Amino acid sequence: MPGKVLIYGGGGALGATCVSYFKAKKLWVCSIDLKPNESADANVVVQELSDFEKQDQEVQERVSQVLDGELDGIFCVAGGWAGGNAASKDLVKNTNLMWKQSVWSTTISASLAARHLKCGGLLVLPGALPALDGTPGMIGYGMAKAAVHQLTKSLGQKDSGLPADACALCIMPVTLDTPMNRKFMPDADQTAWTPMEYIASMFFDWLDKKDLPASGNLVKLVTKDSNTTRLIVD
Amino acid sequence: MPGKVLIYGGGGALGATCVSYFKAKKLWVCSIDLKPNESADANVVVQELSDFEKQDQEVQERVSQVLDGELDGIFCVAGGWAGGNAASKDLVKNTNLMWKQSVWSTTISASLAARHLKCGGLLVLPGALPALDGTPGMIGYGMAKAAVHQLTKSLGQKDSGLPADACALCIMPVTLDTPMNRKFMPDADQTAWTPMEYIASMFFDWLDKKDLPASGNLVKLVTKDSNTTRLIVD
Repeated sequence: MPGKVLIYGGGGALGATCVSYFKAKKLWVCSIDLKPNESADANVVVQELSDFEKQDQEVQERVSQVLDGELDGIFCVAGGWAGGNAASKDLVKNTNLMWKQSVWSTTISASLAARHLKCGGLLVLPGALPALDGTPGMIGYGMAKAAVHQLTKSLGQKDSGLPADACALCIMPVTLDTPMNRKFMPDADQTAWTPMEYIASMFFDWLDKKDLPASGNLVKLVTKDSNTTRLIVD
Repeated sequence: MPGKVLIYGGGGALGATCVSYFKAKKLWVCSIDLKPNESADANVVVQELSDFEKQDQEVQERVSQVLDGELDGIFCVAGGWAGGNAASKDLVKNTNLMWKQSVWSTTISASLAARHLKCGGLLVLPGALPALDGTPGMIGYGMAKAAVHQLTKSLGQKDSGLPADACALCIMPVTLDTPMNRKFMPDADQTAWTPMEYIASMFFDWLDKKDLPASGNLVKLVTKDSNTTRLIVD
């Protein structure tokens, strides 16, 4: 199964794992991030950080330049985290930051999918399990992730603007097994963390329609005793 | 029941109805909007439209100047609407606009509530029933409203930063009976539209704890044969 994929956030821990995994599977890989991923076949380095419409234009233009043909998949794993409740002096600042990091990237990914995904192609967005309910200690983060969840539902419905038979999904891991998490939570139960390779492998299977959930679904990833299972969340 | 309330969006159709209703009930009313509402006791006219943090600062400073004491209620009825699916050339533009119109105003309202609401005070935010599911034809609108819904859930939980015993609710009308809707949908079944006075009256009852739902709830308003009922949405 040769093919072409785009990793939005290919410079991060999960994104870089996906780039390496897909390269090893002989796919053409384009990374979009603030810094290039040297393992990728092509890089779109985002420089416009202050204006949503200009960032969209920048990314669209660069992707059109480096991409020859259609994409099999777009995997957005970009995002960030910031806390704060309603009484925080940083409420607005952090809500703004979370919007930029989570909603700019996912909205641009949706637009890229509408333009470049092949019929039956795959778009995956990054959700967050806590945002299915209230998140009083991280209000801006919860709002941004709730928006990503709802975007996924929109994209899974008729006339969403995605190509025919395209599939849009949102993954909701609990804790990823990343170097940063190992560094900052050395005493946590790491057998409950989801390996990044598991996710990259799952993405690859989904490209091949293997165990692919229906479009519009939010997919919870639960790891227990080093075993990861997938649950569709209503 | 004398008291003080703030109407965010007091220049719009629903907001102006609330200002008039509360004034008739002898409450002190402050309107926040792009234009002043001459019926209000105080006006905060928002001039900063390009930067979220600066708009927050502007509103916070002006509210601190005009407000003497604590607020009994903050009613945010600001918002807007724009359509477009993922293939729309205006996807990013409209998503950005919806964020500004719906999420800036509600986030600033939450911050105002944390600072100025009395213990047991009321904060009401404007939701949208369709955004409980996907909204493929109005993607940016759905994301912004989903964020408002999730914000309400956050504010209803412990340690949200709101004052003790404060109540945060989100209303979800289907169609309001406004002059604009009468003008543009003259042939629609107007007995299924919710009167703005019904909402202003409900807000006033809620201030008095009459039929007040539990904090964090989304309240659907359904009007049929000119009768409106309230349903709590899970």
